[in-house]
Amino acid sequence: MSSVVPLWRRAVAEAVGTGLLVTVVVGSGIAASALSPDDVGLQLLENAFATALGLAVLILMLGPVSGAHFNPVVSAVDWWLGRRAGAGLTLRELAAYIPAQISGAIVGAVLANLMYAKAAVSWATTDRSTGPLWLGEVVATAGLVVLIFALASSGRAALAPVAVGAYIGSAYWFTSSTSFANPAVSIGRAFSDTFAGIAPGSLPGFIIAQLIGAVVGVGLLAVLYPEAARAADEIVIPTSGVAK
Amino acid sequence: MSSVVPLWRRAVAEAVGTGLLVTVVVGSGIAASALSPDDVGLQLLENAFATALGLAVLILMLGPVSGAHFNPVVSAVDWWLGRRAGAGLTLRELAAYIPAQISGAIVGAVLANLMYAKAAVSWATTDRSTGPLWLGEVVATAGLVVLIFALASSGRAALAPVAVGAYIGSAYWFTSSTSFANPAVSIGRAFSDTFAGIAPGSLPGFIIAQLIGAVVGVGLLAVLYPEAARAADEIVIPTSGVAK
Amino acid sequence: MSSVVPLWRRAVAEAVGTGLLVTVVVGSGIAASALSPDDVGLQLLENAFATALGLAVLILMLGPVSGAHFNPVVSAVDWWLGRRAGAGLTLRELAAYIPAQISGAIVGAVLANLMYAKAAVSWATTDRSTGPLWLGEVVATAGLVVLIFALASSGRAALAPVAVGAYIGSAYWFTSSTSFANPAVSIGRAFSDTFAGIAPGSLPGFIIAQLIGAVVGVGLLAVLYPEAARAADEIVIPTSGVAK
Amino acid sequence: MSSVVPLWRRAVAEAVGTGLLVTVVVGSGIAASALSPDDVGLQLLENAFATALGLAVLILMLGPVSGAHFNPVVSAVDWWLGRRAGAGLTLRELAAYIPAQISGAIVGAVLANLMYAKAAVSWATTDRSTGPLWLGEVVATAGLVVLIFALASSGRAALAPVAVGAYIGSAYWFTSSTSFANPAVSIGRAFSDTFAGIAPGSLPGFIIAQLIGAVVGVGLLAVLYPEAARAADEIVIPTSGVAK
Repeated sequence: MSSVVPLWRRAVAEAVGTGLLVTVVVGSGIAASALSPDDVGLQLLENAFATALGLAVLILMLGPVSGAHFNPVVSAVDWWLGRRAGAGLTLRELAAYIPAQISGAIVGAVLANLMYAKAAVSWATTDRSTGPLWLGEVVATAGLVVLIFALASSGRAALAPVAVGAYIGSAYWFTSSTSFANPAVSIGRAFSDTFAGIAPGSLPGFIIAQLIGAVVGVGLLAVLYPEAARAADEIVIPTSGVAK
Repeated sequence: MSSVVPLWRRAVAEAVGTGLLVTVVVGSGIAASALSPDDVGLQLLENAFATALGLAVLILMLGPVSGAHFNPVVSAVDWWLGRRAGAGLTLRELAAYIPAQISGAIVGAVLANLMYAKAAVSWATTDRSTGPLWLGEVVATAGLVVLIFALASSGRAALAPVAVGAYIGSAYWFTSSTSFANPAVSIGRAFSDTFAGIAPGSLPGFIIAQLIGAVVGVGLLAVLYPEAARAADEIVIPTSGVAK
Repeated sequence: MSSVVPLWRRAVAEAVGTGLLVTVVVGSGIAASALSPDDVGLQLLENAFATALGLAVLILMLGPVSGAHFNPVVSAVDWWLGRRAGAGLTLRELAAYIPAQISGAIVGAVLANLMYAKAAVSWATTDRSTGPLWLGEVVATAGLVVLIFALASSGRAALAPVAVGAYIGSAYWFTSSTSFANPAVSIGRAFSDTFAGIAPGSLPGFIIAQLIGAVVGVGLLAVLYPEAARAADEIVIPTSGVAK
Repeated sequence: MSSVVPLWRRAVAEAVGTGLLVTVVVGSGIAASALSPDDVGLQLLENAFATALGLAVLILMLGPVSGAHFNPVVSAVDWWLGRRAGAGLTLRELAAYIPAQISGAIVGAVLANLMYAKAAVSWATTDRSTGPLWLGEVVATAGLVVLIFALASSGRAALAPVAVGAYIGSAYWFTSSTSFANPAVSIGRAFSDTFAGIAPGSLPGFIIAQLIGAVVGVGLLAVLYPEAARAADEIVIPTSGVAK
């Protein structure tokens, strides 16, 4: 089923939103590590503060246009859950969303680099590839998927901006991986060798863990919210009820 | 009186929610103490930031399924207040909720340990057994009970996620005990010898103080909200009005 | 005009609420200065974090009972603005609210002292008596008065809990006096010689500045919200529209 | 089209609101740098915490009177977008808003200086004039414009106080310029040689970058929210739907 907003406009919104999300994550990470050089925890607190607020704002800003997924996992789960009920994204829409998210994410990292007077691209060198970190990504992504579709399923999609922002702000701390939970953002973060970066070689492990997390999340939804599939449409334009 | 959600599903929600709450508390405590080694206050601020946001999100996530108690004291008060009006949990439901909460809490601590590459279980060694700390738990638990049932009693149960998250974030600071205020979470925290841990030997004192706090809270409610008993049902499915 | 809640119950709510507010302010101040000994700014951030969240929660908790003034200045302005329209507190109600607030505040300080294993009472020795600090209190109190009655005047009293909590969290920082803005809380804070304390000798200057701030606030309201007087009733039971 | 509030009253509200916004920014900056001398990042976190909360509160406080623009760029975009539909500010109103904002901003800086026992005026000496900083201002201002008009355009102007506060709190971190994003506030900040100051010589570059950002924001709106022009009226009195 489709939103009334033309697909090209929605793809632009996904690119802009995912891009600015990466700008927020990478940019605030650069500022934090430069300004608080003596305490990595304080850097992460600053990074989490900026990301929680920024992500909530971006979802508010673009939700009525595209649903503000900014995340291939969310888009894919939306398609998967809604595929039988004719709700959620279609495969064609999914094929527009994901490339928009990934290309937006890369541009967002470049923008952050440029604002901070760095080379447009520097490949990240932070290795993130251990079992506990992958477990962190599984937990982070499963929780995110359950949260979004639980809200939609219970008619509270209008709370998603604040809830998702708060979730990520918390998950930066309670998961060992600092909760990337998003393949597009993970790819974008490989383009900046700064606080929030991830070495390209660590990407496959992270993305596989995120996909496993998505499956775990879908499984939990089947137990907790058996009606979630019918609500997949809410995720396409989650704030439309409010916006209209 | 019963919710329309089958009891087994609600018990799963209580286990998952209490478990993830302990994962948030313990996991963010591990990260905070590792990343901000020089300032215990900063560690507690990071821990409180993550817990306030995470708890609010978990209540949003699971409220429509089980009421999102995640706390034997809340479940017990709900049964107690509603027992005459036929509102609130029944004894049978209470007997399903409490074991689910406790077992979930333990698994949640194990999950945090594993995400941070620690032994699955390490008994906490932090002694927490002095009179002032017990007074802190009495205050923390009484305030929590008054808050939850005040909101239900005044038709504002939909605000519980944010209000309870904010309350705990504040009570981490204003009570000397850092506000456990929850027997199940207290037990879970004994399974991780890290920042948020509590030595098993300190558990009885804390749990007794929490029960006394619950009694104090019920007494305050009798003065402030004499109609609270009739609202006990709201606590079973506090967001149902919103959720549909 | 009167609320339907009996006056004695409302006075209890004002005492409990003002008391717990002082417990939050003093208790989190004790914790902050003990745990973050090396950075006063970090202490104030921790104190502001706990106070902003705690104050919002207390207003949510007790608003439907008494209006959750917790502040003689707010009660007095409510009486003053509503005195002709027959809205707001009556003089008799005002005479019950103010002593309840002050005695609650003192007990709240004692409770914080006891939770932190200190003497029940220790007179504060922090001198706060300079012109710039008094100017800070004028600004802080004027802003608080404008905020509360602006919300009531525009039918948004239900936002007061979050707005007042956020205001005080910000005013801790932007006023030089750290924004006491409340005669009852100021008196309570004289009973604890800790981070948030104020020497008894500094009280008269602070309270006079707060009263001047209230007058400035009423003047600003006359310009900005000429209809504010008619809304004085909203402040007696500001969340009743929601609660009912 | 005009609000029912007389223009002089609205101009007062814009002056008071912009002034207090500068007081918040400058005052909390002074406190932060004095109290946390060893970590500039912590200073910025304290400054961002106070500004995010304070800005949200000021918009809540004055939105029903003037729309709470507090920013010549917002007022100008409102006039521009609505000029054909007869929505938004008229040119005459714009000519009242902008001087009120600028003069308020200057008085607000003086007030902060006086509260902190400093000279009423001290010209800032912090040079802020490099390409990356200008890029930061372009991004910050474009995002602000898109956010405000996206909310209005989708019938969610009542969320603007929280959303705009959160946006600025995040943008302090993710833009290299710490997100002034406001010509009037930029001018005010030149009057205090403290943490938040900007050398007068750096003003032209910042203001030009902000204007470019406004144009970029209008361009993005044309793509994302083609109906935004019709919603320009919402920005004049954005919370009237609620307030009424």
